[in-house]
Amino acid sequence: LRTGFPEVIWGSGKTTEQIAAIIQAMRQKASVVMATRIEQDVAEQLQAEIDGLVYYPLARICALSTSETIVTHPGIISILTAGTADLPVAEEAAITAQLCGFKVKRLWDIGVAGIHRLLSHRQVIYEANVLIVVAGMEGALPSVVAGMADCPVIGVPTSIGYGTSFGGVAPLLTMLNSCATGIGVVNIDNGFGAAMLAGQILRTASKLSKN
Amino acid sequence: LRTGFPEVIWGSGKTTEQIAAIIQAMRQKASVVMATRIEQDVAEQLQAEIDGLVYYPLARICALSTSETIVTHPGIISILTAGTADLPVAEEAAITAQLCGFKVKRLWDIGVAGIHRLLSHRQVIYEANVLIVVAGMEGALPSVVAGMADCPVIGVPTSIGYGTSFGGVAPLLTMLNSCATGIGVVNIDNGFGAAMLAGQILRTASKLSKN
Amino acid sequence: LRTGFPEVIWGSGKTTEQIAAIIQAMRQKASVVMATRIEQDVAEQLQAEIDGLVYYPLARICALSTSETIVTHPGIISILTAGTADLPVAEEAAITAQLCGFKVKRLWDIGVAGIHRLLSHRQVIYEANVLIVVAGMEGALPSVVAGMADCPVIGVPTSIGYGTSFGGVAPLLTMLNSCATGIGVVNIDNGFGAAMLAGQILRTASKLSKN
Amino acid sequence: LRTGFPEVIWGSGKTTEQIAAIIQAMRQKASVVMATRIEQDVAEQLQAEIDGLVYYPLARICALSTSETIVTHPGIISILTAGTADLPVAEEAAITAQLCGFKVKRLWDIGVAGIHRLLSHRQVIYEANVLIVVAGMEGALPSVVAGMADCPVIGVPTSIGYGTSFGGVAPLLTMLNSCATGIGVVNIDNGFGAAMLAGQILRTASKLSKN
Amino acid sequence: LRTGFPEVIWGSGKTTEQIAAIIQAMRQKASVVMATRIEQDVAEQLQAEIDGLVYYPLARICALSTSETIVTHPGIISILTAGTADLPVAEEAAITAQLCGFKVKRLWDIGVAGIHRLLSHRQVIYEANVLIVVAGMEGALPSVVAGMADCPVIGVPTSIGYGTSFGGVAPLLTMLNSCATGIGVVNIDNGFGAAMLAGQILRTASKLSKN
Amino acid sequence: LRTGFPEVIWGSGKTTEQIAAIIQAMRQKASVVMATRIEQDVAEQLQAEIDGLVYYPLARICALSTSETIVTHPGIISILTAGTADLPVAEEAAITAQLCGFKVKRLWDIGVAGIHRLLSHRQVIYEANVLIVVAGMEGALPSVVAGMADCPVIGVPTSIGYGTSFGGVAPLLTMLNSCATGIGVVNIDNGFGAAMLAGQILRTASKLSKN
Amino acid sequence: LRTGFPEVIWGSGKTTEQIAAIIQAMRQKASVVMATRIEQDVAEQLQAEIDGLVYYPLARICALSTSETIVTHPGIISILTAGTADLPVAEEAAITAQLCGFKVKRLWDIGVAGIHRLLSHRQVIYEANVLIVVAGMEGALPSVVAGMADCPVIGVPTSIGYGTSFGGVAPLLTMLNSCATGIGVVNIDNGFGAAMLAGQILRTASKLSKN
Amino acid sequence: LRTGFPEVIWGSGKTTEQIAAIIQAMRQKASVVMATRIEQDVAEQLQAEIDGLVYYPLARICALSTSETIVTHPGIISILTAGTADLPVAEEAAITAQLCGFKVKRLWDIGVAGIHRLLSHRQVIYEANVLIVVAGMEGALPSVVAGMADCPVIGVPTSIGYGTSFGGVAPLLTMLNSCATGIGVVNIDNGFGAAMLAGQILRTASKLSKN
Ligand SMILES: Nc1ncnc2c1ncn2[C@@H]1O[C@H](COP(=O)(O)O)[C@@H](O)[C@H]1O
Ligand SMILES: Nc1ncnc2c1ncn2[C@@H]1O[C@H](COP(=O)(O)O)[C@@H](O)[C@H]1O
Ligand SMILES: Nc1ncnc2c1ncn2[C@@H]1O[C@H](COP(=O)(O)O)[C@@H](O)[C@H]1O
Ligand SMILES: Nc1ncnc2c1ncn2[C@@H]1O[C@H](COP(=O)(O)O)[C@@H](O)[C@H]1O
Ligand SMILES: [Mg+2]
Ligand SMILES: [Mg+2]
Ligand SMILES: [Mg+2]
Ligand SMILES: [Mg+2]
Ligand SMILES: [Mg+2]
Ligand SMILES: [Mg+2]
Ligand SMILES: [Mg+2]
Ligand SMILES: [Mg+2]
Repeated sequence: LRTGFPEVIWGSGKTTEQIAAIIQAMRQKASVVMATRIEQDVAEQLQAEIDGLVYYPLARICALSTSETIVTHPGIISILTAGTADLPVAEEAAITAQLCGFKVKRLWDIGVAGIHRLLSHRQVIYEANVLIVVAGMEGALPSVVAGMADCPVIGVPTSIGYGTSFGGVAPLLTMLNSCATGIGVVNIDNGFGAAMLAGQILRTASKLSKN
Repeated sequence: LRTGFPEVIWGSGKTTEQIAAIIQAMRQKASVVMATRIEQDVAEQLQAEIDGLVYYPLARICALSTSETIVTHPGIISILTAGTADLPVAEEAAITAQLCGFKVKRLWDIGVAGIHRLLSHRQVIYEANVLIVVAGMEGALPSVVAGMADCPVIGVPTSIGYGTSFGGVAPLLTMLNSCATGIGVVNIDNGFGAAMLAGQILRTASKLSKN
Repeated sequence: LRTGFPEVIWGSGKTTEQIAAIIQAMRQKASVVMATRIEQDVAEQLQAEIDGLVYYPLARICALSTSETIVTHPGIISILTAGTADLPVAEEAAITAQLCGFKVKRLWDIGVAGIHRLLSHRQVIYEANVLIVVAGMEGALPSVVAGMADCPVIGVPTSIGYGTSFGGVAPLLTMLNSCATGIGVVNIDNGFGAAMLAGQILRTASKLSKN
Repeated sequence: LRTGFPEVIWGSGKTTEQIAAIIQAMRQKASVVMATRIEQDVAEQLQAEIDGLVYYPLARICALSTSETIVTHPGIISILTAGTADLPVAEEAAITAQLCGFKVKRLWDIGVAGIHRLLSHRQVIYEANVLIVVAGMEGALPSVVAGMADCPVIGVPTSIGYGTSFGGVAPLLTMLNSCATGIGVVNIDNGFGAAMLAGQILRTASKLSKN
Repeated sequence: LRTGFPEVIWGSGKTTEQIAAIIQAMRQKASVVMATRIEQDVAEQLQAEIDGLVYYPLARICALSTSETIVTHPGIISILTAGTADLPVAEEAAITAQLCGFKVKRLWDIGVAGIHRLLSHRQVIYEANVLIVVAGMEGALPSVVAGMADCPVIGVPTSIGYGTSFGGVAPLLTMLNSCATGIGVVNIDNGFGAAMLAGQILRTASKLSKN
Repeated sequence: LRTGFPEVIWGSGKTTEQIAAIIQAMRQKASVVMATRIEQDVAEQLQAEIDGLVYYPLARICALSTSETIVTHPGIISILTAGTADLPVAEEAAITAQLCGFKVKRLWDIGVAGIHRLLSHRQVIYEANVLIVVAGMEGALPSVVAGMADCPVIGVPTSIGYGTSFGGVAPLLTMLNSCATGIGVVNIDNGFGAAMLAGQILRTASKLSKN
Repeated sequence: LRTGFPEVIWGSGKTTEQIAAIIQAMRQKASVVMATRIEQDVAEQLQAEIDGLVYYPLARICALSTSETIVTHPGIISILTAGTADLPVAEEAAITAQLCGFKVKRLWDIGVAGIHRLLSHRQVIYEANVLIVVAGMEGALPSVVAGMADCPVIGVPTSIGYGTSFGGVAPLLTMLNSCATGIGVVNIDNGFGAAMLAGQILRTASKLSKN
Repeated sequence: LRTGFPEVIWGSGKTTEQIAAIIQAMRQKASVVMATRIEQDVAEQLQAEIDGLVYYPLARICALSTSETIVTHPGIISILTAGTADLPVAEEAAITAQLCGFKVKRLWDIGVAGIHRLLSHRQVIYEANVLIVVAGMEGALPSVVAGMADCPVIGVPTSIGYGTSFGGVAPLLTMLNSCATGIGVVNIDNGFGAAMLAGQILRTASKLSKN
């Protein structure tokens, strides 16, 4: 049904053998096969077994594809993080988006406590077609960004923080209660889901612009 | 900045006088002015004072506009509800989307407990460019719909239910944890926000097609 | 009192010595003795000590019985899972039900995001006398299944998921708020309890049909 | 699909006109039509309009049926409450079960703080084919009853209590964590759902006995 | 002990008679007596009975004082709100601070979704000696402000919002998790407490600067 | 002030050196010195260093005392558990009570799912002067016991359980909401605190009976 | 069984007719009959119907008794509150204790923010045989009191407060986590239960002294 | 902008290499560079690489500075803890404050259960210009201290405790609900943030005195 999107395996709670078997089975029918939530050691075992399997350690993604650098869809997905600790989630989004054939721009560590830094990067925000904004702790970045942007914003709360961040509940609530409009929220740490939604948005735009 | 979108007043916790004053001030600079969360009696007082103010009772929206039926943007926003009690939230989304200049299709009461009913309407799902799926109680409809659709899905949890629905927390969690991809979630009962996000998504399509 | 049901030990928080002693004591008075929540290494120690003890690694159950394949009660208990990660909980239910003397059918990985897959297995749902539906993440499967089935459905939320699944709270709430009727819910990850309830339902049916 | 069960309307959040219209429409195709969560004044308006509509004030149910006293299915559903304040939920269950054609036994106010009172009624527990146990506050009754009974127990937590009962969360957790087996739990105050599950269980018995 | 601060009565849950009696008793020993959480009708009854009692309707404060406009302490307390609905809480803070003898600056409705508006008022932020930042919904304003300011910031979450704002929990968590430093947080809607803390900070500064 | 009670050290989060030093210091001024929450390996290190230190492994208590078997106060503290997994908490209570000079009776594993077992031990309940009832999972035992007893009952919820027991929240709520009277509740797993309260009750009784 | 204690009706959620009927029935078999949670208007209706019924408006208790001033048991129950708003809960405890035949001392409004006030009343604390400490908001009073007292302390959290007091959860947690020993906690606002526990404690003293 | 404050790195979730690189980069532009949440082993690796890096093991802080003992700002920051287990959080505050150039006084283990101990140290409270009060478990210390002090109090809840302390939620709520005035609260375990706020408060004093 959803031609063009990769086949995806959620690596959590599966044995290395199971993951290897599913990847081998899927590579028959899809041009891109990827698995998320893969730790370094599991990745190495998978690579020993599966020819051409690439591992993105920061994103914790394994993938089989012609190449992740071939941009096949129009539009730019810009990915922003509030802090450097949000990077793994942001990279999960970035690699997923690239494997789906989208152009990705990255902008790390521009949290709202230093608003000038964010403002100095406003051009990235203006040029994006979809924005993925990744933030833990208080999670206020998507609100500020959505107020500046003229494109959809996908808020990704992360479990980065301690005490009353409650494993990402604090930034999740911040994003859901944003007084800025144009924000859709995904699950805590769900960089993958954010990229899939961003891709869906841009594909819909392409379809529509062809009519 | 965001030309084309209406000026919007959040009616909650404002006096009728305050709302009237803000509407009058805004009508100078925007072609569409709307206020959400307006009860019947407040609406009547506002209408007595403001010429041409239209009230949509189910949506609890007051608006000043040339006409809500003039579709100025390409694309279809289809709005689905799981139950009939979700209607006010769905209508808040529908009227907002129309006031923003989008074509809206409505499909009420197709909850997942009768899956054949949902399937019999699959054409509406296939034809949509953005889907807004409104559901209370267990909130499972967006998951099933997103699995069938090839466009972005905006999940709107509602406070409809009792006991362990906890005022909409149950459907919110269901939507955030969906194993289907392509879903962005907004605050409980936030039909307005869902429409603004849908509109932003479709406007991105227009911008993209101009490049 | 409850003749016919096995004697059961909850393995959590007991030493291997304690478990061994209880099994030995119980084997005097019951034809089937089983212990749940037994990890591989504990199982091996128990097997070294107790003659004829069988271990079901996926279900994490140890049992002494004449044979788990002898079906002594009429009726079919069909067990469905939304994902493959829900398998350990589903197997806990399946082995328990078999040890209680019931016929079990298994159907894995038919989550609601691909509704066609579920529909293609509708025969399993129609033939069941009791359905145990195991689901983590958003936990919507029992709702959809109960809408199709004409038999009692036991919903088992699992702790599979991350972020806002809150260790199984999300699917638990989904199941409790289901707008489909005919669903009874058990504790998170409680495959054992689901099987015991299913068995109790079928035994009651037998008793009733004899009157 | 589910022949034999009544058509049901959830009265919450619907106007009297809407409820009346749905009842009239449904009476064409079902022998029993019922609406739950109907307050006294709404019921009176409905009765003025709909011929033969019966109102059960304690259960807050309106129904059209040949007669609720005609028992058409084998088996006894016994309904127990811990306190007298749990009565409305218990009656919602009782009237629903009767309208579905089941024989109902009622036993009120036998909470666990006076265990002798419960024990003096043990015969009711032994004779039941399904037990619906309704309890607020600490909600311990289903545990004790399930330990005595040899039939499925449906636990219905109620919102009766104050402070840390948290609107029924306390008894809900008690029931989900019961160390007795054979208990399925429904939503807080969901007497209707308990009766539908009980009915489904007994109908399964009938089907089984026909095989 | 704490000379200079007014005597304060928390009006919640006290009868008009009780409040009147306490005010009369306290006026003997303090130059300023104030009561918070006083509704309009109660205020009118109190004014009928107590000579010279002033009522601040927005702040819901009643006070007896020489004059609230006499500034007796050095330093400026600037009070900011994210939205207009946060005004009652902000005014509770403002009037309290004035009654304590501090100079107050007010700046309403500068939420983070329109960051340019906040930036255009940066002078107010730079000139303050203490900032009280009042925000409901997502509560991100204190973070952004604290990043710009060089003085202590007191964050006051408000119960303004709906759905997942959970009566002020969302902005409370945002403020507690702020990645900006120099923020102290008070209870939800506690404008009074924020002013008392601000006053305490400025009094300490005065004492220290005299050494 | 509280002569007669032992000096107590809460072992959690202290180094072995710190604990040893505090015990040595305290032994000068108190006839009984005890430390709770001491794991086996720490205990062994402490015993190597401190002459006469006794370790109670199940209770995880280290103590210096003339003898824990010398009963110096009148009255019986009976300690009951619902399950065997509650034993460590119950033993923490039992050893603490003995070290305080009270006579202790133990009764393990009499959970409410098998009410006959509880009833067969009713004599223990009748003879007690204070009852400490320890229960995890659903925590219903104190309710049933308090209904039978004619002495104060101290409810100790434990963290035994999984899923919706939420680390002891479920039994805590059950105990706080008990419809039986005469129950005081302590923190989850706080066997020590229960014993101290029980001891305080009996000491008060002694003082009173002497007047 | 529990001779000497009054018969008690929990007034919540019962009709005036039901309450009247239960009181009349109970007066046959008990010398004291009381009903809690009775509002003024209900009390007046009850008094019109039942001869000799006394109403305690602050405590919201109706009672039939020879006299509440006859002290029949040895020992003093001292009841303390942190604020004046906690009074209704404290009076529910006080009147219940008096109706059970105990001597009661009252000490209102001695919250921990003014520790000198508490210290100036230390004699009341030293003379008590049981202390009932009633506190809302932060609920710290029982900790401080238990540190000073040499008798059992019963902590009663109240729902007095706002925002993060969460209807009494804040003081409840404070009391359960107290680092002082000798505290038993009851449900939020449960003055009745505290008095019953206090009475049970003092009755144990009497029994002990008879041995 | 914020001259005088150190550059700070939050060590959590960063690799040793990343931390080392950031410290080296920052030392160019700031006279004090510090990193929090650094474990012993990471500290040793950092020290091997970075000349002059000091490690404070209890505070888990690494710092480069001329000297932490040079007091450059007027005013005293007094830091109090309720228990000894709160020490790491208190030391994080103390070292941070010292590195910012403030004079620090430490007072450990004066929890409210022994109020006399607190009172015997009242001089420390009277002499402080800002108080940082660190407490886990019930967290009542800031309330009592703020009632005695005439300076701002910063409450730091800690995650010390078990069961219903819920990782620091209990003391957090206690502090937010304090009936004493003049308390600002920071995140659970956030000793660093408390010190930065204290420093900001004292710096305001300096600025004020210059006007
Ligand atoms: N009291 C109740 N609690 C839960 N579900 C109910 C209740 N009453 C009716 N329902 C369900 O709600 C469905 C009808 O909902 P609606 O279409 O909104 O009237 C019925 O099919 C029932 O399954
Ligand atoms: N709006 C408010 N929020 C929080 N605390 C308050 C408020 N108004 C007054 N207070 C505090 O409540 C105390 C008086 O309480 P009471 O004795 O119950 O009137 C005062 O000393 C204040 O510290
Ligand atoms: N297991 C326990 N649970 C709760 N409180 C305890 C426990 N063990 C000791 N305590 C209390 O902790 C105090 C000692 O704490 P500390 O000074 O940190 O060793 C004692 O006076 C006891 O009141
Ligand atoms: N205010 C109260 N809070 C808690 N329990 C109460 C209260 N008043 C009465 N009760 C209990 O409720 C029981 C009576 O409940 P009921 O049969 O519903 O009237 C009595 O035996 C008391 O134990
Ligand atoms: Mg935007
Ligand atoms: Mg889709
Ligand atoms: Mg069904
Ligand atoms: Mg049973
Ligand atoms: Mg700042
Ligand atoms: Mg009792
Ligand atoms: Mg004490
Ligand atoms: Mg103070």
